[in-house]
Amino acid sequence: MSVQVTEISGIPLIQKGDDLPMIICANTNFVDGDIICVASTIVSKSKGYIRPLAEIIPTPNAEKIAAKIGDDPRFIQGVLDSSTDIIIEYPFILSELPFGHIGVRAGVDKSNIEGENIIFLPKDPMKEAREIREKIRQITDIDIGVIVTDTCGRAFRRGQTGNAIGWAGMTAIRDFRGDCDLFGLKLEITEEAVVDEIAAFSNFIMGESNNGIPVVKFSGCGTWKGHDSLYFTEEEDFIRKAIHI
Amino acid sequence: MSVQVTEISGIPLIQKGDDLPMIICANTNFVDGDIICVASTIVSKSKGYIRPLAEIIPTPNAEKIAAKIGDDPRFIQGVLDSSTDIIIEYPFILSELPFGHIGVRAGVDKSNIEGENIIFLPKDPMKEAREIREKIRQITDIDIGVIVTDTCGRAFRRGQTGNAIGWAGMTAIRDFRGDCDLFGLKLEITEEAVVDEIAAFSNFIMGESNNGIPVVKFSGCGTWKGHDSLYFTEEEDFIRKAIHI
Repeated sequence: MSVQVTEISGIPLIQKGDDLPMIICANTNFVDGDIICVASTIVSKSKGYIRPLAEIIPTPNAEKIAAKIGDDPRFIQGVLDSSTDIIIEYPFILSELPFGHIGVRAGVDKSNIEGENIIFLPKDPMKEAREIREKIRQITDIDIGVIVTDTCGRAFRRGQTGNAIGWAGMTAIRDFRGDCDLFGLKLEITEEAVVDEIAAFSNFIMGESNNGIPVVKFSGCGTWKGHDSLYFTEEEDFIRKAIHI
Repeated sequence: MSVQVTEISGIPLIQKGDDLPMIICANTNFVDGDIICVASTIVSKSKGYIRPLAEIIPTPNAEKIAAKIGDDPRFIQGVLDSSTDIIIEYPFILSELPFGHIGVRAGVDKSNIEGENIIFLPKDPMKEAREIREKIRQITDIDIGVIVTDTCGRAFRRGQTGNAIGWAGMTAIRDFRGDCDLFGLKLEITEEAVVDEIAAFSNFIMGESNNGIPVVKFSGCGTWKGHDSLYFTEEEDFIRKAIHI
């Protein structure tokens, strides 16, 4: 198996209203089975999931948290507004988003956006991924997979990695249940979070700073069987339960 | 930027004493700057980091934990023997290993090994990575990077992903500190765990079951600057502190 992973260069700074699928198709050629990773930032920019800090009125709760953390209360209010469950408040907010993802500061970003604005993660990244996939199919008549990615920290280890927050045209998990190992014994590890593994490497290609490569193409990944239950339920998530305030 | 990611096929089932660098070089060609990801399982097999369950005498503590979890006390003893700190015991052991990694069941594996044996992670995967890199350099006169990988679960999300546990010829973290974002503002996200991002995608290529692809080559990754502090210190690791028994 050999996979070619290519940055899609030439994508301009994205503004609200930009036709992302059209811009992507103008900068690369696809073959059936290709997968693209799209940084959530440009999805949010094109859709206008942006708020000026000046328009956000912090609640007393946001003021309290902001004072403790040492952050802008308007930004903190934006984070609270995006969250369905606040897991911790200090030393930073870790919260659950409507679509199941758990992220630092609800994935709200002050970087890579002009002026005193903040960018929010899409409320429904699965829908965004499906939309991009469908529009690319309409433009090119080619069937590709789409992963919307975000950069996140993780437990126990320093540094951020790319993660999947939305996907279309594939399952999140590759399921090995029922498979045997090299010696015919029932496998211990049976669920592989392949969308996160692909998203992680796309982030390596994307870079974090003013490199500006928000879309990465994977050719040759093939297909797999599995399911889409990427996020633990509250009941299963013992780490979440243990740290929850 | 374009990276070619290729499985190195033809690697036989590895036995104790096998010359891994020689076997790898016999099955692929390298160019300067290539990076290989090597599954820790074959490192451990070639080095004989294996114990027969029958030879492990469980302590009362191992018996107690095994009874609670519903696992073989000899296996549990093997896990305890590999651990420098037991973070949780139930529903599974999560522990710290000597080299700083935190893993479920200390990364001890019952799969993909013949008979009633268990495979341990290398005690010093950094040294293993350096050794493989140096030996490949001696064989080929080519300078490559080496990452030793293991498959791990993570907080909040279901499924396993590939992770780096040892590396040579690169830094674990790519450091963007001092970089600006697209608009000249100081970057928020400054440390990227690139060895984990590369390891994650290598695991996608490797597969988990009887596919048998334990080495994956990345051509075209380039180089980066950063540091090797991949693991949080105990003091920094608030999730670890929160869940610690």
